[in-house]
Amino acid sequence: MLPGVGVFGTGRTVRALVPLLQKEGFPVQAVWGRTREEAECLANELDIPFSTSQSDDVLLHPEVHLVCILTPPPHTRQIAVKALGIGKNVISGQAATLTDACKMLTAARYYPQLMSIINNALRFLPAFILMKRLLGEGYCGTLQVCEARVYGGSLLSQSYGWAWEELMGGGGLHTIGSCIIDLLSHMTGERAVRAHGMLRTFVRQGGTGGGIRSVTADDYACFQLLMGGGIVCSVTLNFNLPGADLHEVMLVGSSGRIVARGTELYGQRNTVHHEELLLSNSPSGAGPAVMGMIAMVTQLRMSFQAQDDRRSWARHPVSMAATFEDGLYVQTVVDAIKRSNRTGEWEAVEVRNHDVDPNQNHRTPTN
Amino acid sequence: MLPGVGVFGTGRTVRALVPLLQKEGFPVQAVWGRTREEAECLANELDIPFSTSQSDDVLLHPEVHLVCILTPPPHTRQIAVKALGIGKNVISGQAATLTDACKMLTAARYYPQLMSIINNALRFLPAFILMKRLLGEGYCGTLQVCEARVYGGSLLSQSYGWAWEELMGGGGLHTIGSCIIDLLSHMTGERAVRAHGMLRTFVRQGGTGGGIRSVTADDYACFQLLMGGGIVCSVTLNFNLPGADLHEVMLVGSSGRIVARGTELYGQRNTVHHEELLLSNSPSGAGPAVMGMIAMVTQLRMSFQAQDDRRSWARHPVSMAATFEDGLYVQTVVDAIKRSNRTGEWEAVEVRNHDVDPNQNHRTPTN
Repeated sequence: MLPGVGVFGTGRTVRALVPLLQKEGFPVQAVWGRTREEAECLANELDIPFSTSQSDDVLLHPEVHLVCILTPPPHTRQIAVKALGIGKNVISGQAATLTDACKMLTAARYYPQLMSIINNALRFLPAFILMKRLLGEGYCGTLQVCEARVYGGSLLSQSYGWAWEELMGGGGLHTIGSCIIDLLSHMTGERAVRAHGMLRTFVRQGGTGGGIRSVTADDYACFQLLMGGGIVCSVTLNFNLPGADLHEVMLVGSSGRIVARGTELYGQRNTVHHEELLLSNSPSGAGPAVMGMIAMVTQLRMSFQAQDDRRSWARHPVSMAATFEDGLYVQTVVDAIKRSNRTGEWEAVEVRNHDVDPNQNHRTPTN
Repeated sequence: MLPGVGVFGTGRTVRALVPLLQKEGFPVQAVWGRTREEAECLANELDIPFSTSQSDDVLLHPEVHLVCILTPPPHTRQIAVKALGIGKNVISGQAATLTDACKMLTAARYYPQLMSIINNALRFLPAFILMKRLLGEGYCGTLQVCEARVYGGSLLSQSYGWAWEELMGGGGLHTIGSCIIDLLSHMTGERAVRAHGMLRTFVRQGGTGGGIRSVTADDYACFQLLMGGGIVCSVTLNFNLPGADLHEVMLVGSSGRIVARGTELYGQRNTVHHEELLLSNSPSGAGPAVMGMIAMVTQLRMSFQAQDDRRSWARHPVSMAATFEDGLYVQTVVDAIKRSNRTGEWEAVEVRNHDVDPNQNHRTPTN
């Protein structure tokens, strides 16, 4: 049976996700917004029966068994930890800070029966599922280099908000880079050991209404990761290319390479003289974020539908999802890159498990 | 009047360059090869009247007034410095080491009337000439980021040779990266202040006949340059992609971007929703290296042809060429990247002019 869904946030991702959930048969029961008006407006628009600006109203809603947290990053941890504590399944965005990611992991480990997934839809994208399979089958031989590039227009909101502030989880590295970092470790099965990065904020004044506030979030990031097994990753993110829409991930190995361009997958073995199309575009023309989300919602449906009650779920259909453990790893890498940008040096990536004690009640240190 | 040309080297570049010179009317009079047989074989193939394995035989040849040095890098300095000392005009490949580049610059400064050009044909490629012009006209606004990527197959010779050895000037960074580093400073009008890089040799065994020798030259390089004016450059070279033939240079600014893909040029202003083709491919289908060489030889002809004697040349037609001063700068950056690869840190790029004393007879310290 499909659970009722409670949604936190009123942004673009929510506007994309809710119709997909509804289409798959999930009853979306409640929405939380920063203000009552924002929540109400979205509820009307997307046909959601209940809206509020009080987070508890969604968390305690009797029809809500699955919580989707797509708020500004600084709110994520508090809602995620509380939702798990109340016994709800959780799909959450990346936390804002390392401390938050640690606390979320503690909560997830404390309630291992509950679903706790980081919302990185790229893992569900058919192109990347096929890429991972082919890599495992030896298409590339020994993996040497991963390269990823994402180019696009500005990530800033028109008026001042969290997206302007590095410390609130704004910037290309945190919002888009996180998904790429997670994807690269998912693809390769390895984690970064050291990181080096360079961040820039070329556009200091966003939209209108910024007043004296200037942007601190990066709009350009270029970083390298040294992964286990000697694999080298190089990632470039540039959000000063309005109208561009490039999303490319390439894996190069000793005997071939595979490249995902948008939602398409191409490959070339070293013995062959031309690139082959391994997976073609979806007819809808939607980009990797939306296509990944569609695939993720389908897997979510499969995870819940065969169950007897609305709270139970099967692990297999969502086994490729990013866990809160992955979330902590990603946040650790993001922090190492930011540190490297300041020091100019390679920074070690040390996931600090000792901060995360599964036997400690996580609710005590909250705030 | 077009001067007689003496060519040093028997490699692929020579095989491409000599027919172009002949086509433009340059009498190619003499060729030097490492062995008498190699030189003779090339002379027969390309219809060159004189061949030798003694470098002085070419340098002192009475019909040779322009010397093209396309030997393995460790030979470059010795021949270039001697040629200038004898009063010949010189087009030369990049030196093998910083010391060599210094000595070459000293010689070039000592004979300012002689032509002394570093053979970076990319500067002559129509796409880059147009790119530089548009950049100057403000197409991109304030320049923020330069990105360059070159992907291709192995640079190694089948049997053991200089291309295998980092210390002999082998590797993607030295052979291809040098041209890109030079091009980026030529395009932007700025020089690198600091450099950070990561080099890898994924393929340790080249071709056949390597025996116990293993490759030390890089086949993967990823480096960043901080240029004057706050411009960031990011360059990726990967020569583990047989069959790939990617040569892309992108400049991103505050109001638009320009991208050279192979010999084509594209651009997009931020106010416009689509990319425009600024310069289309040549019908020949030749790559940027060959097309650049064709353009360079044409400019060389124009530089010499209006002159009264075979030794004189006009500066204007070759004013975009890389000088030996540029060569020293490029070698300094290459060295900083190699140092950074070892230390893991950003390395300062300090062109050491104090080593280069124009009042000192350069022939004394040679070897």
